[in-house]
Parts: sequence; C-alpha cells; structure tokens
Amino acid sequence: MKFTIAVIPGDGIGPEVITQAKKALNAVAEAYDHIFLYKEAQLGSCAIDATGGPLPKKTIEICKKADAILFGAVGDPKYDNDPSAKVRPEQGLLQLRKELDLFCGVRPLKAYNNLIANSPLKREIIKNTDFIIFRELTGGIYFGKKELSEDMQSASDLSTYTVDEISRVAHLAFQAAQKRKKKVTLVDKANVLETSRLWRKTVTEIAKEYSDVSLEYLFVDNAAMKMILNPKHFDVILTENLFGDMISDVASALCGSIGLMASSSIGNENALFEPIHGSYNQAKGKDIANPLASILSAGMLLKYLGLHEEADAIERAVDKSLALGITTEDIKRKIQSSTSTSKVGDFIADYI
Amino acid sequence: MKFTIAVIPGDGIGPEVITQAKKALNAVAEAYDHIFLYKEAQLGSCAIDATGGPLPKKTIEICKKADAILFGAVGDPKYDNDPSAKVRPEQGLLQLRKELDLFCGVRPLKAYNNLIANSPLKREIIKNTDFIIFRELTGGIYFGKKELSEDMQSASDLSTYTVDEISRVAHLAFQAAQKRKKKVTLVDKANVLETSRLWRKTVTEIAKEYSDVSLEYLFVDNAAMKMILNPKHFDVILTENLFGDMISDVASALCGSIGLMASSSIGNENALFEPIHGSYNQAKGKDIANPLASILSAGMLLKYLGLHEEADAIERAVDKSLALGITTEDIKRKIQSSTSTSKVGDFIADYI
Ligand SMILES: CC(C)[C@H](C(=O)O)[C@@H](O)C(=O)O
Ligand SMILES: CC(C)[C@H](C(=O)O)[C@@H](O)C(=O)O
Repeated sequence: MKFTIAVIPGDGIGPEVITQAKKALNAVAEAYDHIFLYKEAQLGSCAIDATGGPLPKKTIEICKKADAILFGAVGDPKYDNDPSAKVRPEQGLLQLRKELDLFCGVRPLKAYNNLIANSPLKREIIKNTDFIIFRELTGGIYFGKKELSEDMQSASDLSTYTVDEISRVAHLAFQAAQKRKKKVTLVDKANVLETSRLWRKTVTEIAKEYSDVSLEYLFVDNAAMKMILNPKHFDVILTENLFGDMISDVASALCGSIGLMASSSIGNENALFEPIHGSYNQAKGKDIANPLASILSAGMLLKYLGLHEEADAIERAVDKSLALGITTEDIKRKIQSSTSTSKVGDFIADYI
Repeated sequence: MKFTIAVIPGDGIGPEVITQAKKALNAVAEAYDHIFLYKEAQLGSCAIDATGGPLPKKTIEICKKADAILFGAVGDPKYDNDPSAKVRPEQGLLQLRKELDLFCGVRPLKAYNNLIANSPLKREIIKNTDFIIFRELTGGIYFGKKELSEDMQSASDLSTYTVDEISRVAHLAFQAAQKRKKKVTLVDKANVLETSRLWRKTVTEIAKEYSDVSLEYLFVDNAAMKMILNPKHFDVILTENLFGDMISDVASALCGSIGLMASSSIGNENALFEPIHGSYNQAKGKDIANPLASILSAGMLLKYLGLHEEADAIERAVDKSLALGITTEDIKRKIQSSTSTSKVGDFIADYI
C-alpha cells in the first residue's frame, strides 16, 4: 500500500531521532512491501528562523493532505527566558493542534521489564504498571484569552470548556477503557474550578452510555500523588489540557526512561505522532539522543494506518534492542554499555 | 508567656489529630511554663451543617484576634460529586486564606531517615532530599472569575496575577533561600501562559536584589518530572497557586508518609498551620489517623511565635516516636508494629 506521511523534524534533537524513525519505516516498507511518501515540513524555532513564524502555511497544507504526521520536537531555550518574545516555537505546535483539530492526546505508559531497574520507583511499585492517558488538547487555558495589562502590572489567562469539547475526548477514553481494564479515572479540580465541575457533570452523564466501564474521580493533586504511590491503580486517565500536561510528565518519570515514551494527537481527520521527550537542546548534534520513543511513535502511526503487523514488528525490534542492551546512554545505567542514536536506529531497521 | 491560639478541627480526621496536637502543646506549656488559650472555631462541612455556610463570621473574628491558627482538615466526599452544590466545605478554607490574606503557603519536604524505607522511591534517589515549597495562596485561578453559561453548555475560570501578588511571595522565597542552599527554582508554564510570563519577568527582576541566590526556571511539567527523578536537585521552589497545589502533592508522595507533612499559610498579620493530609474521611473515628503531621504543624506554629526551643522539643519527640516505631498503621510497613492515633499523641506529650 501507499501512504503519504508528513514529517516534521522540528527543533533540538528532533531531526536526529526522526532520521532513525524513518529508517525503521523504510525497513517496514521493504519488509511488508509498502510505499511511504515522506513530505518534510517545518515547525518551531527552525521555522521562525526560516520564515519568521513558528507554523508556515505550507506546513499546515502538507499535514492536512498527509495520511498521518510524524513529529520530532519543538522548543528552544533562547525563547524561554524572554518574556517579551513575540513569537515562540511552541506556538507552532499549539497552532497545529488547533488547525487540525487534534483534540485528543493519547499517551500510553507501560513498565518495560527490561527497564524496571532504571525506574526511580521501587520494583514492587512500578512493576506491571500499564495505563493510558487521554488528554484534551485543543481547549482550556492553553487556548483561552490571554491579556497583559497596558501598564504591565497584571496578566491573565482564561480557561474555558464546552460540553462538546469534553464529550468528544471522553467518548474516546471510555471506548479505550472498554478494550482494557474497564476503568476510567477523571482527573480534575472540581472542588475549586467551574470548568472542572462541568467536566465532572458531562463525564458522569457519558459514563451511563458505557455501563461496562467504571468511573472514578480524583482531584489533580491527589492523582499526581497516587500515580507515584500506586501507579498500578490506573487504567484509563481522562483529563483536561493543563492537568494532562503535568500528569503525563509525572507518568513519564515513573518508567525508567522518557526516551521510550511515544504519544499521539488525534483528530477526526488527522493524527500526529511524536516522542514525548521534547527538544532537549543540550544533546543536539551529539548522536546521543534516544531514538526509541521516536521509533515507537512511528509504530503508533502504523497502527493508526491499520498496519498492525507492521507496528508489532517495530515493537518487537525495540524490545530486542532493550534486551540486548543496544541502547543509548540514558538507559544504559543498569544495562552494560551504550551506543549512539544512529547505531540504535540501524539495529532496529536491520531487525525489522 | 501567654498566647491565644485559634483551633479549627474541621472535617474528617481533623478533630482527632488536632486533639493530639493540643496534647503536645499542653505538654510544651507545662514544660516551658507558657499559657496557651485555645479558641475553638468551625470551618468546612461541619460549619455548613451547623450554620449553613462553610466559614462563619465568628471563625474569621476568632482567627483575626488569635496569635496563630491551628487547623485540622477540610472536605467531605458528599459534596465532591455534586456539581450543583451551592456551598462547598473547601470554600471555607479558601475564603479564610483570602480574608486573612494568607498569601504564602510554605511546605517543607525532608526525607526522614527512619522513613526512607517507606518511600516509593529508591533509597539513593530520595536520601538527603530537603527542599521547601513557597506557593502563592490567594491569587490565580483559585480566586478568578468563575462562570457557567446559562444553557450550562460552557464554563470558565479566569487566572490573574499582579506584579504585587507575585513580588511579596517571591521575596519570602528568596529570603528563605538565603538561609538555605541559596537556590530558587521558579515553576511556571511560561511557554504557554501570560500569567507565567509575568511571573518570570517579575521574579527575574527581584532576583537581582538577592545576588547570593541563584534563580532557575522550570516548566511545571518538567518540574514534576524532575522532582521524581532527582528530588535532591531542589532547594527552594517558588510557584503560583494551582501549580503549587499539584507540585506539593507530588512532593508529599515522595517521602514515605504524607502523615508526617506539615504546612503553614502565612500573611502579614496572621498565620495558619495545618497537616497536609486532608480530611481522609474513610479513617474518621477509627483512631488510626497519623497525628504526627498535625503535631509537627503545632511545632511550626511555635516557631512562628518565636518559641524555637519548644518547637525543637516537638521535633525531637516526633523523631523519637519514629525511631521507637510508636507510629500509626500508615507508616508501619517497615517498622515493627503500630498503635493508635491517641497512643502516639500520648507518647509525644509524655516525651516533651
Ligand atoms: C511544548 C508544549 C507547549 C507542550 C504542551 O504543554 O502541551 C508539551 O509540553 C506537551 O506536553 O506536548
Ligand atoms: C482543599 C483544597 C481547596 C486545597 C487547595 O487546593 O488549595 C488543598 O488541596 C491544599 O493544597 O491546601
């Protein structure tokens, strides 16, 4: 079969890990007789340098036309501590989520047996952890009105949610739970926020349509705590944009390496796949970045395209590289020695 | 000396642990020849039952007149899943913070050697952790305008911050850092939020007045991750209200027992001291709640009143009870056997 894949390497280590993900995809294409047409596009700091803005029109077009989007990373510290910066790399990603209506961020978290020794948590706590986060991605305080008063003495951000925005991501979460352990945990701050109360009310209603799934409620502060004390507690977590940002980073700290965590951003028409590790500019150009998260993102992309066997081949290759210890520095610790970004990518491609 | 202490037992296990904290204070009074005059006041679910509202006028009056406030807990699950509830117990605490202008929440986190075995983190990661969180308590999205549209199809919460609100808590954080390891970490989401950018700008300015203290910036998602992967990294954490709520619960999960964590809420005129564990209604009336956090809160209160030697006596007694294993169930695990809330309180009072 033939697929068009928009490829956005982005900033920092993005280009390096995307190169390895493409290697894996090419290996899949060869082994399973597919054609992947890559359309490269710019976003983030590199797009600002090239075009003045973080999200060129051309990028949106390429993404809309593609069957799926493979994304590297975005962000550059040179913008972070400049509160007066008019453009920011991250805006590119946020605008793309909005333009393509990628309303549902999905982040699976699974404790790999080969990596448990690397987890900051004790073995008995992290072992067998397996949950998935559904994060609303195009609403809330991320996209509400932002104001800085003229005298620059006060600033504000507005968080809003509608029943429709909540419903569509909630349905996806319940449907996922039906195929898993049949439990949804809604994470909110309903004891303080009006938007959270709307979430609770809406999700409670929707739960009635999924009688085989149980619904539990947790305040975000409690949820973060519980995730550390007893991560096995969770099956499907459903939450709003800002809480999801935070909760999913807590989750990624638990498993031993964020260099292994992939995520997808799903809309009705499009879908984007990316490693969650971010641009990590300190490692840029050193050939030390872990390409596995990016390769696993490519695996998620294949699943989305309906290529399940092919996705499995990628996962098996990753497992093998972990088992053999063919990994980058970041997950070396308990495993013997480490190798470079590209050597890991080569191994995966060969194995496929 | 003579002090008036407002005592708010509140909801759930609040009354039980406050009883033990008073025992400890009485022991201090006797040993060091002070007089503590307790003024009991209502707040939360019990106040709603008694008066219709979560924060009776009388409570505010008592608190304003007192030298310090000792607080138990607030919250009752019967309100949590009722999005249409007109009154909520938590509003009582939030209103009290606002009425007394308790703008600075302080939560110290220290890895007790006797409890390291109870931490979910590996020993080498949690060992020697010692940081303190300064959380802005009377601004941000907690107190901004809340709206539910008439058709109940959309809701909003507004987060606002002014330079003044940011400055006063920032100064306290820098002053604390001067007496510690001289490092402040500002936690924000400046890549997305306008309020965060105002925080960054304001705090960066203020940092110049404290040339002996270094300032670092972390996005809240990264900060939560780092706190789990390397908690020793932190000295003083400064953050806004909502991020502080979450970050401090992440912190409390790390140390082995939230039954040991005390906090204070400081204003220019008043100060409130409370255990952070919350109302924990499931344990109510069972004499199993850990009273140590509440007793340590009383210790913080004594320090605030200038009674340092007396506060040390409380801390020593707590250390002793941990060392001897005279503790409640929650921290039993690795220690031998456990005892009741009141027996722990008795031991502490006797020891003092
Ligand atoms: C880059 C940033 C704007 C983004 C977010 O906050 O959503 C990132 O942290 C993420 O989680 O995808
Ligand atoms: C009870 C609740 C409103 C409160 C808060 O969110 O501030 C609590 O979680 C806390 O951290 O003191």
